[in-house]
Amino acid sequence: MKQFTHRIDVRTDGKGLYNVTRPIETWVRGCGLTTGLLTIWLQHTSASLTVQENADPDVIYDLADFFQKLVPDNPKLYRHTIEGPDDMPAHIRAALTMTQLSVPLIDGALALGAWQGIYVFEHRAIAHRRNLVLHLSGE
Amino acid sequence: MKQFTHRIDVRTDGKGLYNVTRPIETWVRGCGLTTGLLTIWLQHTSASLTVQENADPDVIYDLADFFQKLVPDNPKLYRHTIEGPDDMPAHIRAALTMTQLSVPLIDGALALGAWQGIYVFEHRAIAHRRNLVLHLSGE
Amino acid sequence: MKQFTHRIDVRTDGKGLYNVTRPIETWVRGCGLTTGLLTIWLQHTSASLTVQENADPDVIYDLADFFQKLVPDNPKLYRHTIEGPDDMPAHIRAALTMTQLSVPLIDGALALGAWQGIYVFEHRAIAHRRNLVLHLSGE
Repeated sequence: MKQFTHRIDVRTDGKGLYNVTRPIETWVRGCGLTTGLLTIWLQHTSASLTVQENADPDVIYDLADFFQKLVPDNPKLYRHTIEGPDDMPAHIRAALTMTQLSVPLIDGALALGAWQGIYVFEHRAIAHRRNLVLHLSGE
Repeated sequence: MKQFTHRIDVRTDGKGLYNVTRPIETWVRGCGLTTGLLTIWLQHTSASLTVQENADPDVIYDLADFFQKLVPDNPKLYRHTIEGPDDMPAHIRAALTMTQLSVPLIDGALALGAWQGIYVFEHRAIAHRRNLVLHLSGE
Repeated sequence: MKQFTHRIDVRTDGKGLYNVTRPIETWVRGCGLTTGLLTIWLQHTSASLTVQENADPDVIYDLADFFQKLVPDNPKLYRHTIEGPDDMPAHIRAALTMTQLSVPLIDGALALGAWQGIYVFEHRAIAHRRNLVLHLSGE
């Protein structure tokens, strides 16, 4: 079994979902494995990972709206307000979604469903640079 | 280290939780490993995975009810309505739970707690066929 | 590739988040690997795992408050009440967060972000002993 690691920088432009499937797949393909396991780790607590439909772009807008309403940017609701009104709700939205994903690699391709895309979910209001750490093991 | 992959089809009959622990354990046992890591990936964005109590069946009914109320099937709330009133809420419920699980294998058995079962959580109203991809590595 | 497994007992004192980063890192370091993948599995369905900011302690109080309001301890809302008013909401809060985490190991250290801590999120009202199963593979 071999192992490979990599880092991907994702520049976000404020709240919303950013599709990172393609750069991840490109790196995985370059490793040349047939069977294995890819793990994606996001090094932040005010952004997160999610797997969503990659077909109708309305899906990701509706998803972002839902989380905005469920966890409002209202400083009266939180103790932790020193980093801005959008920081504590960002931590909560991150806790409700995922920080890590592991995807099997089969026949040289990630085992994503036809409509599955991997997204970084930015929960902060302003632009951020987000770091993904990738680990791939297999043969 | 060896690797094994497998696919399991799960036929759901509309909204609810479907216990998939047994077919997963049967396959893992057949691989004959002692120590390793099993990864389960669900290839859909309107169903998800969850780990829940396998003792009192009321738990999974209460869980399904909670998600139904938290994310209502009300088309007025969403832009994405072309696939039916239950599709967009299904995507949101999937984002709130999990698409992937990795369970350690120790002494030849999955390290599930005594009351833990692995469930496919169907979020769509009608019957679906859901695909699970399994990856096992170890010795 | 080598594999290591371990168990960590976490004693909780009722609802709240308990930082388990340090005992996990200590064990990982003792395994002496440079590159690999650590998987953490919590063997319970009324507690969960989350990755949160380890700097301002208000973050974890706000997070616990949010889940308490989102999923109230109100027996009228649930069928499953025989294990106490806090049991069914504990299962739901667990479903909304995580049961498992896999963290890449790079250059001998877990690839956690600067502000990321790994927490056991206790959802029951009284003290519990919670079991974490760790699996590490790599070289």
